[in-house]
Amino acid sequence: MGSLLQATVDKIGPVSAAWRIKARKHLDNLAIPPGSLGELLDLAEQLAAIGECLTPSVRNKAVVTMAADHGVVEEGVSAFPREVTLQMVANFIAGGAAINVLAAVAGARVVVVDMGVGVDLDSSFAEKVRFCKVDYGTRNMAKGPAMSREQAVKSLETGIEIAGRLVDEGVELLATGDMGIGNTTPSSAILAAITGRSVREVTGRGTGICDDALENKIRVIERALSINNPDPEDPVDVLAKVGGFEIGGIAGLILGAACHRRPVVVDGFISSAGALLAKKLAPASMDYMICGHQSLEYGHRFMLEELGLKPLLNLNLRLGEGTGAVLAMNIVESAAQVIGKMLTFEDAGVCRNS
Amino acid sequence: MGSLLQATVDKIGPVSAAWRIKARKHLDNLAIPPGSLGELLDLAEQLAAIGECLTPSVRNKAVVTMAADHGVVEEGVSAFPREVTLQMVANFIAGGAAINVLAAVAGARVVVVDMGVGVDLDSSFAEKVRFCKVDYGTRNMAKGPAMSREQAVKSLETGIEIAGRLVDEGVELLATGDMGIGNTTPSSAILAAITGRSVREVTGRGTGICDDALENKIRVIERALSINNPDPEDPVDVLAKVGGFEIGGIAGLILGAACHRRPVVVDGFISSAGALLAKKLAPASMDYMICGHQSLEYGHRFMLEELGLKPLLNLNLRLGEGTGAVLAMNIVESAAQVIGKMLTFEDAGVCRNS
Repeated sequence: MGSLLQATVDKIGPVSAAWRIKARKHLDNLAIPPGSLGELLDLAEQLAAIGECLTPSVRNKAVVTMAADHGVVEEGVSAFPREVTLQMVANFIAGGAAINVLAAVAGARVVVVDMGVGVDLDSSFAEKVRFCKVDYGTRNMAKGPAMSREQAVKSLETGIEIAGRLVDEGVELLATGDMGIGNTTPSSAILAAITGRSVREVTGRGTGICDDALENKIRVIERALSINNPDPEDPVDVLAKVGGFEIGGIAGLILGAACHRRPVVVDGFISSAGALLAKKLAPASMDYMICGHQSLEYGHRFMLEELGLKPLLNLNLRLGEGTGAVLAMNIVESAAQVIGKMLTFEDAGVCRNS
Repeated sequence: MGSLLQATVDKIGPVSAAWRIKARKHLDNLAIPPGSLGELLDLAEQLAAIGECLTPSVRNKAVVTMAADHGVVEEGVSAFPREVTLQMVANFIAGGAAINVLAAVAGARVVVVDMGVGVDLDSSFAEKVRFCKVDYGTRNMAKGPAMSREQAVKSLETGIEIAGRLVDEGVELLATGDMGIGNTTPSSAILAAITGRSVREVTGRGTGICDDALENKIRVIERALSINNPDPEDPVDVLAKVGGFEIGGIAGLILGAACHRRPVVVDGFISSAGALLAKKLAPASMDYMICGHQSLEYGHRFMLEELGLKPLLNLNLRLGEGTGAVLAMNIVESAAQVIGKMLTFEDAGVCRNS
């Protein structure tokens, strides 16, 4: 394990139980029927416990969209050609993609990271993309490891570093996002490797492949797992053998957020694969995660079950980029304001129930 | 039926089918895997069809929180005393209630309306509350009609007028809200009257009553329906016999929004009782309704089934005030931006799937 990764994992601790209690006591006094703001109250408690403060701020928001290519695309696992990863990065820069539009509504800035796009990005992109390429796409995991162990550590540490820099810049709420043609394939592989569930059960249609292509995708993932035999107790090994650079980056971003005690909204299927790795590396990182949404990609439910997270939204999204996470940011902000600004029964002069 | 009510109902027509098709065609060309933005795409289509425009604007937002008292509270149907309605109106004015805080996050202004609070409001409230009192609370529906037919029409027409004034002031997206101790009781009664479902099935714990109180509440609603015998085919009769002034106001607000061709986000159980009346009065008003959230109040699911609406959020809220509706406004805004600002495959230079 790299020294930054090790130091980060060592530093991640659970949120304060005392602050959880303090927050809940305050929330129980708000001038509403007990519990009537449902999950907003749980979220408010979590934010207060993370921030160790009854007026947690999540105003300064950023979504980090990590892009990378996947060697396994040569096995025909995606409905889109590999070139689309780069084309979508260009779309993010032009500001015309879903993540740009939704992040603007959420008041979040979009940080695009080249974790491993298959080609060099045009130097004109430099102002708007963080160049952190680990390699020009992973290798084909159906034929051997997707990346070396060193590359796996590097992708994790890149995510950690980006989280650290954003926190230094004042970001109070992070969200994860991904772009990578073919990346539901490694995500399903990670899910199967870590949970022991069958590949068939955890593999879905991604961007929308047909029945034959789905059967092929299942066979490819089975082959990748059988050839590489990742160790479920060693998340770095799982990432190296059947992962992707953006998935490692996302896992690192989550670890970095947890290390700096900032909440992080996890997007859908690909981001949750990263979250599975983060949880394995540092179980206490769970305390800082918020699940943005339930993806339509079938296997996502198993990830959430394994993570023990309940999604804030369920809008049948299956796009990635961080879209489900930024859509949920407004709810996170709402929860912060509920605990920070609402009046109690006493302050509002409202009778309690009998 | 009053002349404003009749004229409004007559004017409400369905949204343009041609614009629905036009919108869907545009959405199908956005640079994303087909359908991958799920319900945002359906919402975007609805907004475009309502606005007859591919760049619908919902920037100028208002939530209308209608307050009134209920004579049936003397039967012990609520966990809170009747005085709390007035106290909560004061809290809305002080800005310390959930609706104030959540509306601020959503960028919506809060319009508080006295539809029938049981006492005169302090004149100092005049700047921040619209005084539209139909009467000092309804009468006890367990002993006779809650209000006269004239009062039912007046409450509907008040809602219509408020919608009209807000649209004149530039409001592009409306939301409904309620405050009225005891108002899950008339809402359950309306639901039972209109759908023919049993009172037991549609009656829940409201602000949190105990088992004995729930049994009493069921008996009270059964008595109210049996004594008054509302005509399910005459929504004004249902409102008069077992409704409430704020419920009539909400129904009127929805009709007014539909008449002026503006989308309206419907909040939870009480607001949906209003929506049931609006649908009965003008079925085409459905085209303008958006369901903000699924309430934890058990009967809400039957209302949504009857309305044919799918909730955007499901966060176990059961507060009212318009809280679930304003929480969903950000998603509505997101849908508007998706259709208005995202690039198509062609414009973004992204390959389509093979």
